Amino acid sequence: MDIILIRLGEISLKGANRGRFEDALKENIRNFLKKEGINFFGVRSASGRIFIDRPSRVPNLSKVLGIVSYSPAWEFVDIEEVKDFLRSREDIFKGARSFRITASRADKSYPLASPQIAKEVGTAVTGNFPIAVNLKEPEVNVGVEYIEGSFYVYFETIKGWGGLPVGISGKLVVLISGGIDSPVAAFLMMKRGARIIFLHFRRDPEIDKIPELYKILSSYAAGIGSELVVLDMKKINDFYEKIMEDPRIHRYMCVLCKHMMLKAAESLALKKGAMGIVTGDSLAQVASQTLENLKAQRYGLRLPVYSPLIGMDKVEIMKIARSIGTYEVSIKHREIPCPLHRHPTTKADLETFFRYNETVIKKLGYKPWEKILKEH
Amino acid sequence: MDIILIRLGEISLKGANRGRFEDALKENIRNFLKKEGINFFGVRSASGRIFIDRPSRVPNLSKVLGIVSYSPAWEFVDIEEVKDFLRSREDIFKGARSFRITASRADKSYPLASPQIAKEVGTAVTGNFPIAVNLKEPEVNVGVEYIEGSFYVYFETIKGWGGLPVGISGKLVVLISGGIDSPVAAFLMMKRGARIIFLHFRRDPEIDKIPELYKILSSYAAGIGSELVVLDMKKINDFYEKIMEDPRIHRYMCVLCKHMMLKAAESLALKKGAMGIVTGDSLAQVASQTLENLKAQRYGLRLPVYSPLIGMDKVEIMKIARSIGTYEVSIKHREIPCPLHRHPTTKADLETFFRYNETVIKKLGYKPWEKILKEH
Repeated sequence: MDIILIRLGEISLKGANRGRFEDALKENIRNFLKKEGINFFGVRSASGRIFIDRPSRVPNLSKVLGIVSYSPAWEFVDIEEVKDFLRSREDIFKGARSFRITASRADKSYPLASPQIAKEVGTAVTGNFPIAVNLKEPEVNVGVEYIEGSFYVYFETIKGWGGLPVGISGKLVVLISGGIDSPVAAFLMMKRGARIIFLHFRRDPEIDKIPELYKILSSYAAGIGSELVVLDMKKINDFYEKIMEDPRIHRYMCVLCKHMMLKAAESLALKKGAMGIVTGDSLAQVASQTLENLKAQRYGLRLPVYSPLIGMDKVEIMKIARSIGTYEVSIKHREIPCPLHRHPTTKADLETFFRYNETVIKKLGYKPWEKILKEH
Repeated sequence: MDIILIRLGEISLKGANRGRFEDALKENIRNFLKKEGINFFGVRSASGRIFIDRPSRVPNLSKVLGIVSYSPAWEFVDIEEVKDFLRSREDIFKGARSFRITASRADKSYPLASPQIAKEVGTAVTGNFPIAVNLKEPEVNVGVEYIEGSFYVYFETIKGWGGLPVGISGKLVVLISGGIDSPVAAFLMMKRGARIIFLHFRRDPEIDKIPELYKILSSYAAGIGSELVVLDMKKINDFYEKIMEDPRIHRYMCVLCKHMMLKAAESLALKKGAMGIVTGDSLAQVASQTLENLKAQRYGLRLPVYSPLIGMDKVEIMKIARSIGTYEVSIKHREIPCPLHRHPTTKADLETFFRYNETVIKKLGYKPWEKILKEH
């Protein structure tokens, strides 16, 4: 294999935006290759493709977001070389019953059109091996692309995640728990180009899935680096005690606690230059994830909150969690459940929430999100 | 066919929440059947399923959100009746090479376990037709379910959208344009149980796809009713004129305009008792959909903004648009493009935005979102 031929996503990207996208992706690929200890001559783009020249082995580019698919390929200067190469590939064609050539021509300067290239190259194969052409369901699929003066030949196309290169969109703070949803939310925002600062509130030091989840998610950051901030909830035990002193306020515990976390995420974001907060909220997934409660939790935030799972079903979320590799970690242990009221509110009233929040802060004498961040 | 057997979604739904979910879904199914002019005896639930008794025809229940799948089924009082029925179904088994029985028992009161039910019923089929059992890839799949004293037999399982019944989560205002994204965003929030108030800003009265998009989306509202508010942007032409007077402000046109729309959506939501706003934003899909611009647009809103597509790629969004039927309408015509600056900002500065917004409002002498809503 001489090169890796990489296909890019986002059909809607055009003009200047496309150039910025390609540059960011090339940089991420370079970082990723270095991190993986893969030697290479260069990473360059041509005709809407990206090429890794002479890598020391095939990298697992499904870890680099922004790539739609990639093929380990061989490079040739003319069509005769392509034909000779294919005639030599007994390992591919011997014993196979059918094949097809899928040819393309990135620039029209080459005298043969794509179907003619396919035909000529195909004849070299059928002339050398007892194999039939099958356009619909071939056993062997051969790609031949003519790009800026060279031919590229490949036998395999490996799917990537698509999306945008991590980092291109700026930073976001993700509230990550040990559950199934928030790691998926983080991944989806990474796939839209965000660089992530993970913020975790640790309730149960015994069961800590976060380092493992962080490692998996960071593996998609193409060596660009993400960041993990873990805050110990024990430090604000008073906060929970004050909430539980009054059974009416206790019913609002979840809403007050999530609000506290969002405020902490906002403070952290403002400190770190992040431009928004991400949560794993999915509307009505649990009884307390109502529009009323979400509205109360988010009240008074100055930064936008993004919830990429807000419109998804649990099964869809689980499917993504499985394919990115976080599912198995998320379901491993269950944390100690929160000391919730037996009937937590499912329809938080905004004014009541506001009053309770003020009451708890007054009793405490400090804002719990400020305390927990400062003592970090 | 005697009944429709309906399977529900949301594996995580439990307890009281489940009851509320089932009641809302039954009500939506009743409304849908009435709207479609389908007669029926009743809609009831048993053992986690919903049944439509004696409908006059098979309804297209893929239009009712909250349903995972459904099967037109026949009802029998004992297993002998099931066997007689299957022996009589020449139309199904004659000529077919293989079949399987998939049996289940909702309550354990019935003496035979599921595999035994399958075996006994299957023997009736093999005794009557020259057909083989094939558990892996059967030509005919027969479902037999024992639920609360009755057997239900079916040959087909039709997929629904899953999710939650429309209306169960409360109301949201969706900013709908004629594009591909916002109808998909609306659909996804409907699928999470939201009842939708559509808000459209009409720029080009010649090309009006909104009534058609509204009709398609409303068809998923199970007769629960949605609402469409169309505002004529001509009424605030001054707003655009003031923006264009200063080329620096003109660069912020998109951000100022989206902010105006969000403010109008918020006012409408507060008036109509809706608890949030929905947009079709997808991070970095176009050059101007940046975290900086989104942050500026959303500044100072009191209601949460939900963007279910924020973490999705264009191809994923287009796929959903195609399957719900809005894609073909969205791509039909293109509206007159906005008189944008040649280099619209992709990194709105929050303070600058704030100042420009104040400047434009001061020049106008009124808040454009208030004017356009009042004159509606």
